[in-house]
Amino acid sequence: MYQQVIKKIGLGITLSLAFTSVWANTLNETQLKEINGLKNAALNSTLAYEIDESLTTEVGARMIGSKGDKLAIKWAQAKMKSLGFDKVWTEDVTYITWERGMAEARILAPYPQKMVVLALGGSVGTGEQGIKALVVHFESLNDLQNAKAGSLDGKIAFISKRMTREIDGSGYGPAVGGRGAGAVVAAEKGAIGFILRSIGSDNNRVGHTGMMRYKEGVKKIPAAALSNPDADLLVNQFKRGKPVEVYLKLTSQRKDDVAVTSANVIGEITGSENPEEFVVLGAHLDSWDVGTGALDDGIGVSVTMAAASLIAKLPQRPKRSIRVILFAGEEVGLVGANQYMEKNSKNLDKHVIGVEWDFANGRIYDMRPGVGPQSLNNIRDLAKLIAPMGVSLNPQNNGRGSSDIRPLVSAGMPAMNFSANGLDYFDYHHTENDTLDKVDQEALPQITAVYAMFAYFAAQSGVDFRK
Amino acid sequence: MYQQVIKKIGLGITLSLAFTSVWANTLNETQLKEINGLKNAALNSTLAYEIDESLTTEVGARMIGSKGDKLAIKWAQAKMKSLGFDKVWTEDVTYITWERGMAEARILAPYPQKMVVLALGGSVGTGEQGIKALVVHFESLNDLQNAKAGSLDGKIAFISKRMTREIDGSGYGPAVGGRGAGAVVAAEKGAIGFILRSIGSDNNRVGHTGMMRYKEGVKKIPAAALSNPDADLLVNQFKRGKPVEVYLKLTSQRKDDVAVTSANVIGEITGSENPEEFVVLGAHLDSWDVGTGALDDGIGVSVTMAAASLIAKLPQRPKRSIRVILFAGEEVGLVGANQYMEKNSKNLDKHVIGVEWDFANGRIYDMRPGVGPQSLNNIRDLAKLIAPMGVSLNPQNNGRGSSDIRPLVSAGMPAMNFSANGLDYFDYHHTENDTLDKVDQEALPQITAVYAMFAYFAAQSGVDFRK
Repeated sequence: MYQQVIKKIGLGITLSLAFTSVWANTLNETQLKEINGLKNAALNSTLAYEIDESLTTEVGARMIGSKGDKLAIKWAQAKMKSLGFDKVWTEDVTYITWERGMAEARILAPYPQKMVVLALGGSVGTGEQGIKALVVHFESLNDLQNAKAGSLDGKIAFISKRMTREIDGSGYGPAVGGRGAGAVVAAEKGAIGFILRSIGSDNNRVGHTGMMRYKEGVKKIPAAALSNPDADLLVNQFKRGKPVEVYLKLTSQRKDDVAVTSANVIGEITGSENPEEFVVLGAHLDSWDVGTGALDDGIGVSVTMAAASLIAKLPQRPKRSIRVILFAGEEVGLVGANQYMEKNSKNLDKHVIGVEWDFANGRIYDMRPGVGPQSLNNIRDLAKLIAPMGVSLNPQNNGRGSSDIRPLVSAGMPAMNFSANGLDYFDYHHTENDTLDKVDQEALPQITAVYAMFAYFAAQSGVDFRK
Repeated sequence: MYQQVIKKIGLGITLSLAFTSVWANTLNETQLKEINGLKNAALNSTLAYEIDESLTTEVGARMIGSKGDKLAIKWAQAKMKSLGFDKVWTEDVTYITWERGMAEARILAPYPQKMVVLALGGSVGTGEQGIKALVVHFESLNDLQNAKAGSLDGKIAFISKRMTREIDGSGYGPAVGGRGAGAVVAAEKGAIGFILRSIGSDNNRVGHTGMMRYKEGVKKIPAAALSNPDADLLVNQFKRGKPVEVYLKLTSQRKDDVAVTSANVIGEITGSENPEEFVVLGAHLDSWDVGTGALDDGIGVSVTMAAASLIAKLPQRPKRSIRVILFAGEEVGLVGANQYMEKNSKNLDKHVIGVEWDFANGRIYDMRPGVGPQSLNNIRDLAKLIAPMGVSLNPQNNGRGSSDIRPLVSAGMPAMNFSANGLDYFDYHHTENDTLDKVDQEALPQITAVYAMFAYFAAQSGVDFRK
């Protein structure tokens, strides 16, 4: 019965969308012709793939503060200029120093075997001798939280929770808490080390890195991620009911008092009538150090730049500016995004609407706005234009952006959330396997087309998305 | 037209198989009941998976001469005894010493990036300093063979040929030649190092190892396999038309004059009437050192042992013996198989028929005998029993066994070739990724059933497969 009601409501909304999109006329005939031309150009373009190929071949890994990061900043500026951006600049970003070093893990007992392991981002090292300790197995962060104080004295805590594979990446959230908080909770119970099953949906013998946190006043213990097959192996050894002992060595170095510099790279297609207002296309330029960041966030870098570049090729600029922001240090905690907020605090109201690509490796299938109630009708016009590419308009109007643009959205910027097929995204996320061959070349033109149409629409229409 | 003729011939054979299987009566009613009971027991058994889980959890990697190899030999004997084998023994095998050491590779120019690389089996090292050299790119071994003498002086040769994915693994042969012969051919042209795209159908950031060869009188140069994504990266850097320079370091050690010992492990279900004659179920116990050898050849070890064990559970032994031979050192060149031939040269005629599992990770779909013309009718009886499990009888009678049992077949032992689905086999083959989670748990009961029925049939029927 409840299902029935929901279904009816759903139908009602779909119908009303169909009707409204007949009468709303956000764009005029000339503009409609132009936006459809843009769509066709994007669908027939391999530009986004070429940009990603260039980034991953000529730069590769680009962790904040690394040589690769500095190369990437130069690469991005040069690429934007060659793609016809009107203005390109950088805004400095600073962060602490963290170096991965090497990681080694072995089961010592009951059955000696090596394991594949990767330090979590931000982890301290173990020292050159490494640590050798009995392991206590927990199936989840919650189980670890329920362990008695002192019960982990001198031991290594291990969480074996596995993330699930979902099209929208929703398996990530329930598992990733252990990565962030595990080391602190384990240390509070006396542990001297923390290992967890990688937060990944794959079965590859590679660890998935990603940020972990420490807490003031709690001992900083080394934290590392096992590959999924190695987590399986460890669990199978636990099944024998014998004590499990592990050796762990991380030569990671964390220097909270040594700053590194990086930069947000910003490129603008300058508006012809209201250049001081701009549409934000966000992505992050940094990657983890292990792969070449072809997906995370090479796709975001490539589709935002490609979409803006296609608009730059039109005979004239849309009314508002389009600002591609390639943020620094997203992986280590939205560092570039937060520093952008400080530097741009006086013109936040000029960010008319924003979008960010930092997830998925497939076609866009859903758009969910987060705009004022009045401008929703205009969004429906955009939806009608995008629908033939397989993109549904989500009946909810609660898009909050994601990743780097979240701080802007929290400060009042309207947002558009595009959902794309991310079924295989967490197979490669934060691993050595994040490389160019994983990029879905068939999807990129569609994504670029949606982005270009969205940016053009928002820049050309003059709609106030806050209303 | 030609197609038409072939089709008719094919049809004729199929029909004749169907008719003959109606009148041949290799097994009597009691035996038919027993073999079908065996089939049902196998299809409802998880024994093969349990054996593989035990091998990979309690032993893991087991390269010939390693600690793991010694553990595996003990494990196999204990397991056979616990599974009800009547006799279990070992036959010593010796081999040279080879240690992998570590491998490191980086592109130095035009765009510095690290690569994932693995030493090929048997390769010499580079020395602690490594080698730094310009790279010459060849698309195949054939292209390398066509390079001019001296044209590779002081350089590293690189072959980028990619193997194709095929159900029967037939993409392996055309690509693997470069792995075996590449270093010799490159050295003959003056190269100081050899790298090749891994012989694998995957897109993972792991190298595929496997044996390479040296040649008397040709300089031994270090040889390594790049992961597929890294081979792509290197090819993409070559596309820029600039000189490509690479750093390669392998700390591998090859000691041709230091022997290691290993053993073939043999278990027998002793026949009740003709115990001196036996049916051979072959697999190899060794694995490469990088994965846990769950597929290669954990599956072979597990299905041969499980099939024999199910037969040992019957109320009485079949007439002939069933001999499970777990060969040593297959990976380094059929070392155990060749030494088995020497030790068993006097009773080769007692090996009535043999089968080997050393490929694939899926259900059996085809059986191809290699027997005398007269016993083909008996094979048709077996085929009829196995057919309901989706196994076709191949109209060709040219099965030559594979891998470890090839020397026996060359010496006159009849063989049965079972073909199984190996579509994903070369994703994991000879890599760190060869782990338990890759094993197709749904396929193992079917494979075990086919093996058990084959072994029972050959042991119980008394058919002379040489005739």
